[in-house]
Amino acid sequence: MSVETLFLQQMHGRKPRQLYDPIEYILMQPGKRVRPRMVLLGAELFGTPPEKVLPIAAAFEMLHNFTLIHDDIMDNAPLRRGKETVFKKWNSNIAILSGDALATMALEQILQTELPAKNKLEIVTLFARTSIEICEGQQYDLNFETKEQVTIEEYMEMIRLKTAVMLAGCLKAGAIAANAPRSDREILYNIGISLGFAFQLKDDLLDLYADQQSLGKQIGMDIADHKKTYLLLRALQEAQANDRDKLLQLFAPENSLSLEEKLPQIIEIYRKCHVRDKTEVAIENCLNEALSLIETLSCPENKKNSLREIATLFRDREK
Amino acid sequence: MSVETLFLQQMHGRKPRQLYDPIEYILMQPGKRVRPRMVLLGAELFGTPPEKVLPIAAAFEMLHNFTLIHDDIMDNAPLRRGKETVFKKWNSNIAILSGDALATMALEQILQTELPAKNKLEIVTLFARTSIEICEGQQYDLNFETKEQVTIEEYMEMIRLKTAVMLAGCLKAGAIAANAPRSDREILYNIGISLGFAFQLKDDLLDLYADQQSLGKQIGMDIADHKKTYLLLRALQEAQANDRDKLLQLFAPENSLSLEEKLPQIIEIYRKCHVRDKTEVAIENCLNEALSLIETLSCPENKKNSLREIATLFRDREK
Repeated sequence: MSVETLFLQQMHGRKPRQLYDPIEYILMQPGKRVRPRMVLLGAELFGTPPEKVLPIAAAFEMLHNFTLIHDDIMDNAPLRRGKETVFKKWNSNIAILSGDALATMALEQILQTELPAKNKLEIVTLFARTSIEICEGQQYDLNFETKEQVTIEEYMEMIRLKTAVMLAGCLKAGAIAANAPRSDREILYNIGISLGFAFQLKDDLLDLYADQQSLGKQIGMDIADHKKTYLLLRALQEAQANDRDKLLQLFAPENSLSLEEKLPQIIEIYRKCHVRDKTEVAIENCLNEALSLIETLSCPENKKNSLREIATLFRDREK
Repeated sequence: MSVETLFLQQMHGRKPRQLYDPIEYILMQPGKRVRPRMVLLGAELFGTPPEKVLPIAAAFEMLHNFTLIHDDIMDNAPLRRGKETVFKKWNSNIAILSGDALATMALEQILQTELPAKNKLEIVTLFARTSIEICEGQQYDLNFETKEQVTIEEYMEMIRLKTAVMLAGCLKAGAIAANAPRSDREILYNIGISLGFAFQLKDDLLDLYADQQSLGKQIGMDIADHKKTYLLLRALQEAQANDRDKLLQLFAPENSLSLEEKLPQIIEIYRKCHVRDKTEVAIENCLNEALSLIETLSCPENKKNSLREIATLFRDREK
């Protein structure tokens, strides 16, 4: 059974439809399904087959989509994966409430999984910690929009909370379901954090350097949204004084230039201080950290390749 | 220890403050604390002292306040308990995110309670079911604003979901924590449903017939918000044709009369068809249902009085 089939099963017969249609809409959009894959992987490394942990995989994908529904309201984002966001297609009240319901449906999935009570409680606890850290990360992200100086350290802490803990939680949840040794659970969590950093830095890169067609959304949205990304923070660190001042002007919320006018100027400054290369090196460093942690896992060697493949995929993805 | 002390303990050291200040703001407002009292009561009936279930009591109060934060955005409500609502005092993005975090903090409270894994999982499952039913209830409530014909049956189902299941969940959660017999858990749940109906019908009454000072909010807000309450639905059922037409005109969203102009006309029609008395009878019926269920509980007779007192309090409250 696929995670999509499970979603459809879970939606069946629920009402009112005004609440559940937006949930079905977002869950059934084709996506990378990174998070379910990580859960299944965490379990498979320790010999537990996918079908046993599918509800947990679904739970984390639901949690992820809940955050997307609410984040899109906060960011006033019209498009997601090339389609209208929930709050644009319906309205923000429906988006708030459907998001709330989806977060609880995610929890229900874990509760419905057949597992010993102790393991299930551990996964629920991990799920709760992850959920709250994602809220904290999102709040830092919102704060950064108006905060004048953001250090790369602060930025990394924000993306740790907003993105990395979810991937870490997925891998660990799979491992808990498989009753993996405690030390392996922690290693997997840390692998997830490193992969999560790589994933988000790649996201920052793609916002500017992807092919718009394959990305499925407009190039430069982070710039349009005044998001402080790794690219910007790194450029501010590396650029010469006049370029730094120019960047700050270009990113100032009161700057009235259009995105089309800003983009070439920003790209030119980034080119001069090699921001793209430096971000790629940072991604590579995160992946190497993950790869060396993979070496220390106690699971059979032949199982580790799928985890290594995910790492490569995170680096090479084009959307 | 009080539930407020536990709230403050839980808030301590959390950051970013932009996320947690609104949560502290709403949790620390003086309130009736009906839900925590119900949890403590459910446990005490079966011999478990309050301090053992305080985190569960806190969890349900947190869940309740989470729904208030989000409902106030959806209802565009400026005041709650005589103070600015979270989204008015801050903004709706902060209110969405703080609400999300608060819902998860509620779950964390249950997870932190010292209980056998099996009982804890049962309470988490009840908590999840309650959370999702509240979302469904709120969605029906939103639907009813624009739905032309709402039956009293549909209305009762809406308030069952939006209000009653929470009170029922509180009583039952306390009983699960106290390891009460299964049959008593179900009876307590049903007592909570009956009390919840009474609670909401009383809320509908107070919106129009309370003393504004003791209510802490403006009289007639349900009318201003085009909410279909028990009073209206009952009046539409009881009134003569000309009064029914007049009521429908007064409640039509496109009606441009001010609340001050509408109120005396609505009150006059309600008076003519005895809506106030009939609502009071409906409340009394719910309370009698609860009181006769209390008789069937297997706990010691002398413990039942505090439950009976809550029932009376629900009927006699002025805010």
